[in-house]
Amino acid sequence: MDSTTNIQELKEKIKKFCDDRDWDQFHNAKELAIAMNIESSELLEHFRWKKDKEVDEMFKDKEKRQKIEDEMADVFYFLLRMSDRYNIDLSKALETKMKENSAKYPVKKFKGSAKKYNEI
Amino acid sequence: MDSTTNIQELKEKIKKFCDDRDWDQFHNAKELAIAMNIESSELLEHFRWKKDKEVDEMFKDKEKRQKIEDEMADVFYFLLRMSDRYNIDLSKALETKMKENSAKYPVKKFKGSAKKYNEI
Amino acid sequence: MDSTTNIQELKEKIKKFCDDRDWDQFHNAKELAIAMNIESSELLEHFRWKKDKEVDEMFKDKEKRQKIEDEMADVFYFLLRMSDRYNIDLSKALETKMKENSAKYPVKKFKGSAKKYNEI
Amino acid sequence: MDSTTNIQELKEKIKKFCDDRDWDQFHNAKELAIAMNIESSELLEHFRWKKDKEVDEMFKDKEKRQKIEDEMADVFYFLLRMSDRYNIDLSKALETKMKENSAKYPVKKFKGSAKKYNEI
Repeated sequence: MDSTTNIQELKEKIKKFCDDRDWDQFHNAKELAIAMNIESSELLEHFRWKKDKEVDEMFKDKEKRQKIEDEMADVFYFLLRMSDRYNIDLSKALETKMKENSAKYPVKKFKGSAKKYNEI
Repeated sequence: MDSTTNIQELKEKIKKFCDDRDWDQFHNAKELAIAMNIESSELLEHFRWKKDKEVDEMFKDKEKRQKIEDEMADVFYFLLRMSDRYNIDLSKALETKMKENSAKYPVKKFKGSAKKYNEI
Repeated sequence: MDSTTNIQELKEKIKKFCDDRDWDQFHNAKELAIAMNIESSELLEHFRWKKDKEVDEMFKDKEKRQKIEDEMADVFYFLLRMSDRYNIDLSKALETKMKENSAKYPVKKFKGSAKKYNEI
Repeated sequence: MDSTTNIQELKEKIKKFCDDRDWDQFHNAKELAIAMNIESSELLEHFRWKKDKEVDEMFKDKEKRQKIEDEMADVFYFLLRMSDRYNIDLSKALETKMKENSAKYPVKKFKGSAKKYNEI
């Protein structure tokens, strides 16, 4: 598994992992959304009270970086699990959303504009 | 972009989208983690006050399904953006985490055990 | 401090606690909102994967109940801290919001109506 | 209702509001914790992408200030509702937690120490 692995393969690996443990019974959309919330809060917790500069420093520390990657993996795991359970094509969903965002945030208007971004 | 698109391609598409708008200045890890929290709460909000059966019904309604997919795409977008900004290989991070979880939740002990899962 | 203690007294106790440690420098609204998010996710984590019946059982277990109360106290602490730092009268804010909600959810329409509540 | 109103009175007002609408059926601890998460994310959303200085400016704008107060009221509402439903004395819970924190973060060690606070 690396950056050339496609989404379908990742979903299947997770499905096998969960099937082996008979975990379908717990993994409905509401529980998976709860799990995503908890994991993304654990990710945010690493940056609590930190200034921007301190945040960037954390990624140079191997151990801290690993912990951050672990939390990101947890969010990803539940996101993929949900997309597998409900037959959602994450890449297509992302493409649809990005098309909408391209129209909503035209380059001409938003380029380099901190002020406008702040109003999003 | 579909389920055979790999993670690297998705990251590059998002990078281009953000570069075109000069958004690097806003996208440090802390802000991206905040964004992931907000988007995963918006996802959860769709299921608020709903019983399991009602949750599953939502996915049969085309419009509701689309809204849920949109929120999932938002979480995915910020997760990919963070992994691109900090050179994190999400698939490898996921693989590492799943190896840990395989050891932590052995099939023999967890298979079909609601009780044990609840103690996680 | 008990249920007859008023909000003002609670805010002042927290203010003294933070002043003693010179913590104003960390407690701007954004950081406090981040903290509230993290603590309310820790609260939710106690109920993850649990069915309604199991959730209610938890409150009969003294130790589990204490842990839940601790997380609620953490949310309350940051909420009071924010209201003190920005001169917000939480009771008045609550009263204002409840008046709006009284108009938004009239008794006649909502009483006993699970269906309508679900559409909120 | 103002800053001299005590917690017990606030809980009773909310109880009456919910009893009038027969909402006990929705308000178990898990749903209330979900609601707290969603509302505290809506609070955080107001500060998304904002620098510290911009955050403080928001409180000078009457309309923005009102929106922030509304979100804080929402978090407070669900926190009070949960404490009423499960007979939790929020002030006592807060007192217990602050005693623990006084021991955990002694004044001598933490006063004025940004570095130490960051390690919390």
